[in-house]
Amino acid sequence: MKLLEDKILTDGIILPGNVLKVDSFLSQQIDAPLMEKLAEEWYRLFENEKITKIVTIEASGIGIACIAALKFGVPVVYAKKMRGANPSSDYYSSKIVSYTHGTSYNVVIPKMHISDSDNVLIIDDFLANGSALRALIKICENAGAKVCGVGIAIEKTYQGGADKIRNMGYRIESLAKIKKMDDIGGIEFC
Amino acid sequence: MKLLEDKILTDGIILPGNVLKVDSFLSQQIDAPLMEKLAEEWYRLFENEKITKIVTIEASGIGIACIAALKFGVPVVYAKKMRGANPSSDYYSSKIVSYTHGTSYNVVIPKMHISDSDNVLIIDDFLANGSALRALIKICENAGAKVCGVGIAIEKTYQGGADKIRNMGYRIESLAKIKKMDDIGGIEFC
Repeated sequence: MKLLEDKILTDGIILPGNVLKVDSFLSQQIDAPLMEKLAEEWYRLFENEKITKIVTIEASGIGIACIAALKFGVPVVYAKKMRGANPSSDYYSSKIVSYTHGTSYNVVIPKMHISDSDNVLIIDDFLANGSALRALIKICENAGAKVCGVGIAIEKTYQGGADKIRNMGYRIESLAKIKKMDDIGGIEFC
Repeated sequence: MKLLEDKILTDGIILPGNVLKVDSFLSQQIDAPLMEKLAEEWYRLFENEKITKIVTIEASGIGIACIAALKFGVPVVYAKKMRGANPSSDYYSSKIVSYTHGTSYNVVIPKMHISDSDNVLIIDDFLANGSALRALIKICENAGAKVCGVGIAIEKTYQGGADKIRNMGYRIESLAKIKKMDDIGGIEFC
């Protein structure tokens, strides 16, 4: 999606450690009108899937997921990060291991908010190694919900997470796909 | 706002300790179409204020703030909770003390995302004792931004936080105001 690629080129900042900072429009500050354009594109791509619920993960996924949910006319449920305690039986949960930070934590969704009658569209801002997305898919599958698709704003294709999940049979639609990125050469899209 | 009051009466759950659980439509699960109705009402109330930015706090405020931001055609910036470390000079910060949990933490907004040219509308899901709202107001004031108003979904008037802040001169528009609540008598609105 050219609009998003252009925004990344003008406002994204590449930090050491291969980090793309898009804090000014997608993360801590959210450009709501731009997010609406992304939402319209996901709606065009998934409108025939009879989506009943959008699933995302806190915190940076929530805004974009809610704007997408408006287009589909459905609710959003977001997975919470739960550090320390083990989740009770009231929750579907899945563990995320962060090799970068050397930590692990559970993400949880209350059982009352997702069921086998749901057709889920997962929405998130970033997809790199895919650990958060795999956790969300696992929660949906444990609930018996059907994952009809995944909408991602920015995919870093060179980290390989997305293609592994595509190979499992899931449809992932990323609106900007970064093939290569460094602080000298800049950003190259697929 | 009758629509919201009705939703609270049908789907809200009163838990011990005077907790109102609205998890099925306002917190972990977000009824996006309902939130759009709330956003339209805030737009009606604040449309003459030349709002340039919506400010909220993670995580449960983000969804409703983004939907409101769409109506105003402006970005959202949310305050992050920062536990442990002290914020660097790149952030405006304010401390929140939770007497319930016996903890305190800083909430922060990067200085680059708010400035003295902003007319801010603060949006949040709940207002009870007002500690989170006071922290957001303090951050805006430190940035030199003008707080033009506050939009709240559910205010618990009997906890007194809102009126103290109104007495400081801020305009708070709460769409459901709970005067009294207990697990026997149910919920009474103002």
